[in-house]
Amino acid sequence: MTDCLGDGAGDMTPMDLYEKLTSQGDTVRTLKTEKAAKADIDAAVQLLLKLKVDYKQVTGQDYKTGCPPSECAVSQDNGPAADGEDMVDPWNVSTTNAKGVDYDKLIVRFGSSKIDQELVDRIERVSGQKAHRFLRRGIFFSHRDMHQVLDTYEKNKSFYLYTGRGPSSDALHMGHLIPFIFTKWLQDTFDIPLVIQLTDDEKYLWKDLSLEDCHRYTMENAKDIIACGFDINKTFIFSDLDYMGASPDFYRNVVKVQKHVTFNQVKGIFGFGDSDCIGKIAFPAIQAAPSFSSSFPQIFKGRKDVQCLIPCAIDQDPYFRMTRDVAPRIGYPKPALLHSTFFPALQGAQTKMSASDANSSIFLTDTPKQIKNKVNKHAFSGGKDTVEEHRKYGGNPDVDVSFMYLTFFLEDDEQLEKIRQDYASGALLTGELKKRLIETLQPMITSHQERRKQVTEETVKQFMTPRPLNYSF
Amino acid sequence: MTDCLGDGAGDMTPMDLYEKLTSQGDTVRTLKTEKAAKADIDAAVQLLLKLKVDYKQVTGQDYKTGCPPSECAVSQDNGPAADGEDMVDPWNVSTTNAKGVDYDKLIVRFGSSKIDQELVDRIERVSGQKAHRFLRRGIFFSHRDMHQVLDTYEKNKSFYLYTGRGPSSDALHMGHLIPFIFTKWLQDTFDIPLVIQLTDDEKYLWKDLSLEDCHRYTMENAKDIIACGFDINKTFIFSDLDYMGASPDFYRNVVKVQKHVTFNQVKGIFGFGDSDCIGKIAFPAIQAAPSFSSSFPQIFKGRKDVQCLIPCAIDQDPYFRMTRDVAPRIGYPKPALLHSTFFPALQGAQTKMSASDANSSIFLTDTPKQIKNKVNKHAFSGGKDTVEEHRKYGGNPDVDVSFMYLTFFLEDDEQLEKIRQDYASGALLTGELKKRLIETLQPMITSHQERRKQVTEETVKQFMTPRPLNYSF
Repeated sequence: MTDCLGDGAGDMTPMDLYEKLTSQGDTVRTLKTEKAAKADIDAAVQLLLKLKVDYKQVTGQDYKTGCPPSECAVSQDNGPAADGEDMVDPWNVSTTNAKGVDYDKLIVRFGSSKIDQELVDRIERVSGQKAHRFLRRGIFFSHRDMHQVLDTYEKNKSFYLYTGRGPSSDALHMGHLIPFIFTKWLQDTFDIPLVIQLTDDEKYLWKDLSLEDCHRYTMENAKDIIACGFDINKTFIFSDLDYMGASPDFYRNVVKVQKHVTFNQVKGIFGFGDSDCIGKIAFPAIQAAPSFSSSFPQIFKGRKDVQCLIPCAIDQDPYFRMTRDVAPRIGYPKPALLHSTFFPALQGAQTKMSASDANSSIFLTDTPKQIKNKVNKHAFSGGKDTVEEHRKYGGNPDVDVSFMYLTFFLEDDEQLEKIRQDYASGALLTGELKKRLIETLQPMITSHQERRKQVTEETVKQFMTPRPLNYSF
Repeated sequence: MTDCLGDGAGDMTPMDLYEKLTSQGDTVRTLKTEKAAKADIDAAVQLLLKLKVDYKQVTGQDYKTGCPPSECAVSQDNGPAADGEDMVDPWNVSTTNAKGVDYDKLIVRFGSSKIDQELVDRIERVSGQKAHRFLRRGIFFSHRDMHQVLDTYEKNKSFYLYTGRGPSSDALHMGHLIPFIFTKWLQDTFDIPLVIQLTDDEKYLWKDLSLEDCHRYTMENAKDIIACGFDINKTFIFSDLDYMGASPDFYRNVVKVQKHVTFNQVKGIFGFGDSDCIGKIAFPAIQAAPSFSSSFPQIFKGRKDVQCLIPCAIDQDPYFRMTRDVAPRIGYPKPALLHSTFFPALQGAQTKMSASDANSSIFLTDTPKQIKNKVNKHAFSGGKDTVEEHRKYGGNPDVDVSFMYLTFFLEDDEQLEKIRQDYASGALLTGELKKRLIETLQPMITSHQERRKQVTEETVKQFMTPRPLNYSF
């Protein structure tokens, strides 16, 4: 993939670069239209991003489609977000930086707030629990209105959690677990109800899948989610295809949101175009509606003022920026958010782990042997080319995917710090680091598989039945 | 209203006319945005249409916004339908012709088929019943695939009926009854199930009304519909706001349609723009879904191949052109259609009767005295200015609203023909014609009011509960 990024831009004129960029943009669109292999699209996007950086260097301007160099000085931002080198929207995440997306820049661009040490300390104080490693290590790094949620909680008023997933395949990978692991911790820590939306309607609208397939993925994915250990008395999991047809209150909130968002707005937020189907255009309202407690009268007994907190990956923020914009206009409180970074692909932090590329991902169905092979073969290494060089100069944990994964999953802070130092100094070799990761992942995934086996159809049905939940507020 | 149409275009240059047209277009938009009185908007639209006709006469070109004369020879048709003088879409019906819209032209423009004598004869033959006066008199004048429906019926396979209404006020007027009167006749004649959609979600999206108001109108309107005499064992009436949240199969069909229609398409068909809310953009799929029998598994036991026949006013055809386009792509039969003309306003056939203009309409809640006053005061007359002239030259039944109304409601063909001849010859005076109409309407509306009083909340609930229906196929 990195081959394509070799060409220097030094000797190209602005117009040369402009034309190369335009043609590369066409290539990306063609690949996407033709549903080319994920790896090919990623490679083409990487080159596109690289060319944009070169273009900016050479011309001092941002590249705009249809505007040759120096003709278009005025900046327009109508399409999906694109921050210099990083591209982050609900369907694409990529960057040219091996350390991954620049999350501080993303906070500025999205207008959210950083989860700083003060907030982490406050969460510990208010909950009386040690902060989850995802908070301690900046994996959940950004928030909206989390202080307000804690203010409310301190006054003995409660809140509820909302997270979700778009079910597009049978097998979840480890990246999919991040929001659920953290949400379970929040549920246990604050003892509050949780709703989990499975957007099978979204997947039907976006992918070349039948409604039946999308619904089947939903039921399979629900088992993996349940295996994360959620409290059956406090958790409602729902398929959009089922719940929309089972709750007039949910549909009423969808229509309320749909009345207050224009095509211009979703065009600006999500980059929709005139040739997109009307289902895609209207869908954001369906992801917005669970942010309002009145969508679940069976849980909240008709109350429409219960504060919602949404833990999710940062790429889902556009949906909830829109939701927060609409909320006061339809008489509801704005949902609060906790944003996570992306879980990197085995090949490196330039893209996130993707279920459609088997080699980029460790699946929850992988055997211990497959895990070992994938890590050894594909995990991008920050080590040096030879043992001698590595011992002499040390490795780079900041770009090393095995180390990144340990940051997500190794609970012990001291052990993690020691591994970082040893790897950076050269005392720890890449093989040894990978072994450490394999030993962490294997039992984790094996025990997930065992818990999943315990999840019966009956249990799934219970979780997915609209019903009252147990909570004390 | 006709005052504004007096100015001749003879001495104006093309550019004068172009500028006058552009400014008049702005006036219409402003009036609509400011929700001005219906009568003011109608007057402004009339002038706009008149100017367009003048413009075409003078320049030989159709007027296009933003294109001064002779600069834009290439025709574009992206907006809602506009046929020379007639404007017909689901939200606007108007013409400069006192006889009303040119329905033959509309058949050509919409690509439907005329209901000719042969089809009327065949309906009589197949059903063994005398054709309804709406068929005999060309009030239902256009169709799609009605011969195919009859072919199917002759093979002892059945079909079902689907019609509906957008509930935007408590009181229905007489024009609203036309599709229901005819649908009841079809139900009785062919002994088949019927579904009636009340699009309270649509009215919420389009009007400045709350969800609660729209739903309340639905329940009130349902009583008037039930009072038309539908068979409770063969009829399901539903509110979108309720049924969407009560039927996963209905929502699945909505999403299927939404996946197969683009924004470009609804822009072309309905004239939606970028500043329309996403609810409007997605709504056509909700009006489409009842055309498919699988939207009602409780009625059709999961069968997705039962042919649907939709009796409706011709302005609803754009929804079903879209539906028929999508149907084969999602594996369903195309719905067949029977189109009616519009029910003219009291002031004349240039516009249809509208509930938002009390003086244009006779409501189902009007007293005999109100009916008498409205007809005498507002019904546009085709008579001459003085009795002497009328006796001498005769009246014009083709533009006389009282005569038009008798065409809708007087059952006896011979009596109607005699009235026409006597009025045209001058033997029958305008006052006498109006008296005849008043005597026809008063008992009709009084007995509707009596039947409506019999409709209890319990009856409404029964009609609106998703349930199996009695039918023999």
